[in-house]
Amino acid sequence: MAAAASRAVIVSRPVTFVTGNAKKLEEVKTILGQSIPFQSLKLDLPELQGEPEEISKEKARLAARQVNGPVLVEDTCLCFNALKGLPGPYIKWFLQKIGHEGLNNLLMAYEDKSAYALCAFSFALGPDVEPVTFLGKTPGKIVPARGPNDFGWDPIFQPDGYDQTYAEMPKEEKNKISHRSRALDMVKSHFAEAGYNFTPSRE
Amino acid sequence: MAAAASRAVIVSRPVTFVTGNAKKLEEVKTILGQSIPFQSLKLDLPELQGEPEEISKEKARLAARQVNGPVLVEDTCLCFNALKGLPGPYIKWFLQKIGHEGLNNLLMAYEDKSAYALCAFSFALGPDVEPVTFLGKTPGKIVPARGPNDFGWDPIFQPDGYDQTYAEMPKEEKNKISHRSRALDMVKSHFAEAGYNFTPSRE
Repeated sequence: MAAAASRAVIVSRPVTFVTGNAKKLEEVKTILGQSIPFQSLKLDLPELQGEPEEISKEKARLAARQVNGPVLVEDTCLCFNALKGLPGPYIKWFLQKIGHEGLNNLLMAYEDKSAYALCAFSFALGPDVEPVTFLGKTPGKIVPARGPNDFGWDPIFQPDGYDQTYAEMPKEEKNKISHRSRALDMVKSHFAEAGYNFTPSRE
Repeated sequence: MAAAASRAVIVSRPVTFVTGNAKKLEEVKTILGQSIPFQSLKLDLPELQGEPEEISKEKARLAARQVNGPVLVEDTCLCFNALKGLPGPYIKWFLQKIGHEGLNNLLMAYEDKSAYALCAFSFALGPDVEPVTFLGKTPGKIVPARGPNDFGWDPIFQPDGYDQTYAEMPKEEKNKISHRSRALDMVKSHFAEAGYNFTPSRE
């Protein structure tokens, strides 16, 4: 028992998952289940430019400083191979401004319509601990929009090996192969292996 | 004299122009001449996502806090009308990853090749003063690269009313109409009108 105790990292507060997006929170809850005590919080963090992994780590650092405790942050990119990974972290603005058709149009000059959905989670134990990052990737291709239009770019992303777009797939099916679920699987494994010991501080 | 004195805002230190780009510093010096005492400094500021004006203001706030004095920051965007202003603030990454040809390709689906070069300067007197922003805009179109290849996307931007790209134009010619010079003209006028009084504190 002594060995287990010395190995355990005590985490006295639930992990704060930083999001203002109810859909994301729901997806994360479905996948993580009850294995990790967490709460969600909308923080006003700056959205940064850069490479996906760096953006994620920096976001975790900023969040951990604000929360002064353990945080989990999430970012999603949609990366077109013909555009060397872009729009990538800027997909939100492209979707907002040019929509599904505009996103398809960006690839008009290329035969290569392949893309990958990328999800980056970064976890920081606190403001003085370097975050660890988990990248989940799902390869696929960009297609004209098909399926319900209530979750971002899901209607234009068709994962490899499927005839359906993310939007057309039943949620359980999507959760099995999605970039987000792949990244969350890594988060889950990390928590299991790291032996974090959630010991609530006084109520 | 009393009126003038009460109107003047005393600035005890030269304005710090935040840049690590020697070419930009040179351009700014050429246009501003000796009217404003300034020094340049490379700061490690986060690059933000968002609308150009907001990015610029927030950058000035962060810089003023770091410098603890008057700062001038600059950002450049290249905005394609068919893409509703994008790549805009993210042009740096697009240029880096897909180059001049890739940037032209983004517009393959559109007849409208029009674009505008946008320069945002924000000036903050100090960490507790809300920055003022000056937006200089030069309309033009995106063309296959022509001219020397030593200054970003200059070879693919042809300003309206000219047969030459930015890269092909003599520097003095470009400086007359460029987005940067237009924004700097506004900075210059603002300084003249605001009646800032540069009184160096002790050496």
